[in-house]
Amino acid sequence: MTKNTKVNAAILIIGNEILSGRTQDTNTSSIALWLNSIGVKVNEVRVIPDIEGTIVDTVNYLRKFNDYVFTTGGIGPTHDDITAQSISRAFNLDYEIHKEAFKILEAYYKVGEFNEGRQKMVWMPRDANLILNPTSGAPGFNIENVFCLPGVPSILKSMLGGLTNKIVGGKPILSHTISLRTVESEIAKSLSNVQDDNKDIEIGSYPFFQAGKLGVSIVIRAEDQLQIDKCVAEILEFINEKKIQVVDR
Amino acid sequence: MTKNTKVNAAILIIGNEILSGRTQDTNTSSIALWLNSIGVKVNEVRVIPDIEGTIVDTVNYLRKFNDYVFTTGGIGPTHDDITAQSISRAFNLDYEIHKEAFKILEAYYKVGEFNEGRQKMVWMPRDANLILNPTSGAPGFNIENVFCLPGVPSILKSMLGGLTNKIVGGKPILSHTISLRTVESEIAKSLSNVQDDNKDIEIGSYPFFQAGKLGVSIVIRAEDQLQIDKCVAEILEFINEKKIQVVDR
Repeated sequence: MTKNTKVNAAILIIGNEILSGRTQDTNTSSIALWLNSIGVKVNEVRVIPDIEGTIVDTVNYLRKFNDYVFTTGGIGPTHDDITAQSISRAFNLDYEIHKEAFKILEAYYKVGEFNEGRQKMVWMPRDANLILNPTSGAPGFNIENVFCLPGVPSILKSMLGGLTNKIVGGKPILSHTISLRTVESEIAKSLSNVQDDNKDIEIGSYPFFQAGKLGVSIVIRAEDQLQIDKCVAEILEFINEKKIQVVDR
Repeated sequence: MTKNTKVNAAILIIGNEILSGRTQDTNTSSIALWLNSIGVKVNEVRVIPDIEGTIVDTVNYLRKFNDYVFTTGGIGPTHDDITAQSISRAFNLDYEIHKEAFKILEAYYKVGEFNEGRQKMVWMPRDANLILNPTSGAPGFNIENVFCLPGVPSILKSMLGGLTNKIVGGKPILSHTISLRTVESEIAKSLSNVQDDNKDIEIGSYPFFQAGKLGVSIVIRAEDQLQIDKCVAEILEFINEKKIQVVDR
C-alpha cells in the first residue's frame, strides 16, 4: 500500500448544515464511487464548518498527505460561501475575478441577471483551472491537487464526468459482493481464516435487513480479479460446508 | 465560542464501506441531531478506514480537542471489527473480556448460541462503561469522553436515548428555517447585511429543488431565541421589500 502503486484521495465536506444534522451528506458516496471507478482510493473524509481558518488548515494538511483532495460546498453566492477565499489563502494566492468564469456566467444568465450575488461566484484563487458545470453554469475550480466542487448533490454529480480526464488514477479497485442469509457470528471465524490467507485483500462483512430477514454481505475488494476469485472460492467453500443460503453472489 | 460556554463533540465514522462509497452514512445525521437537542455542537466529523493505527491516532487526537467523541462501526463479531482493540490501545488499557457484557449476551442468546464469534463482542478495554443495546443485545462502551457505538443505523439510533444522561450538554442550540421561492443570488447581499448585524448568529443559506421549482432555505441557529427572532424579523423585512414568496417560516 505504498504511494507508488496506489493513488489516494481525501474528501472534505464543508458545511455547517452537515454538522448540525439538518442535511444528509450524499456527496461522499457519489465522489467515492466515481473515484473507485478510476482507480483512486479514498483515504479519509472530513466534515468541517464554514470557518475560514479551519478550511485553510484542513486543506493544507490533506493536500500534503493525499494525491488528490476534493472539497464540496461553499462556492455559491451567499455570505456563508467562503471556500474560494479560503483556498486562496491556503495556497497564498490572490482571490480575484476569474476572467474565463466571468465570461461563462455572463453568457449563461440573461442580460441584467448577472447581478452582484452571482458575480461573487467568479471570484477564485488566481489562475485557478475551471471545472465546468453543465447544470447551473457556475464552475468549480482546481488548484494543484485540490478540486473544489459545489455542495448541491445533483450539480456535483453532473460535474464529475468532466473531471475524469484531469485525474490520473491507479488500477481500478475491483469488488465482489456475496450476500448470505446468515448472521455475522456464524461466519466470523471462517471468514477471518480467509482474511489471514489473503492478507492483501480487503474483506468486509456487513449485516443487512431485507424483507424482515437478517443477512450478511461479504465485500471483497482488490485490484486483481484473480485474487478476488480466489477469495470468493474460499468463502463459498465454507459457506457450502455450513449449508448457508446464498442470496446473491 | 470558547470552551467554557459551548460543549463540543466530534463524530468518528470507522469503516471501509463508507470510504468506498458502497454504504451511505446516515449515522452522522442521527448523532448530530440528537447532540443538538441536548446542547452539544458537532465540531467535525471524520471517516477513516478499518486500520488500527489510524483509529488509535485519530481517537487520541479528537478526544484531546473535543468534550466528547462518538465513534460508529467496528464493534461486531467479524475480523474487520477492530474498534474495541484499537480504543484499548489508544487509552493504553488491557483488551479483555468484560464480565458484565458477557453476562448480558449469555442471557440474550439461547443456550448454545453464544458462540466464539459472538463472544468477540464482549472483549473491550478494561473497566469500560457499557452502553446498553435494546435492539440486538451487544452493548457499546465508553471510556472517559469516548463513546463507541455500532455502525448499523437502526441499532445505533436505539442506543442514543439511553446515552442522554451520560452527556452533559450546554444550552440547546435552537434553529429557525425560512423557506423562500427565490434563488440565492437574489438575497445574497441583504442576507450578508443581516449576518454582519448579527455576528454571533449562524446564518446559513441552502438552495433546494421542490416540485420542480427552485427555492432557498435560510437557517438561523443560536442558543438565544430572542436573537433568532431579531434575525428572522430583519430577514422578513427585506423579503417583503423584495416581494419574494415565503414558502414556510
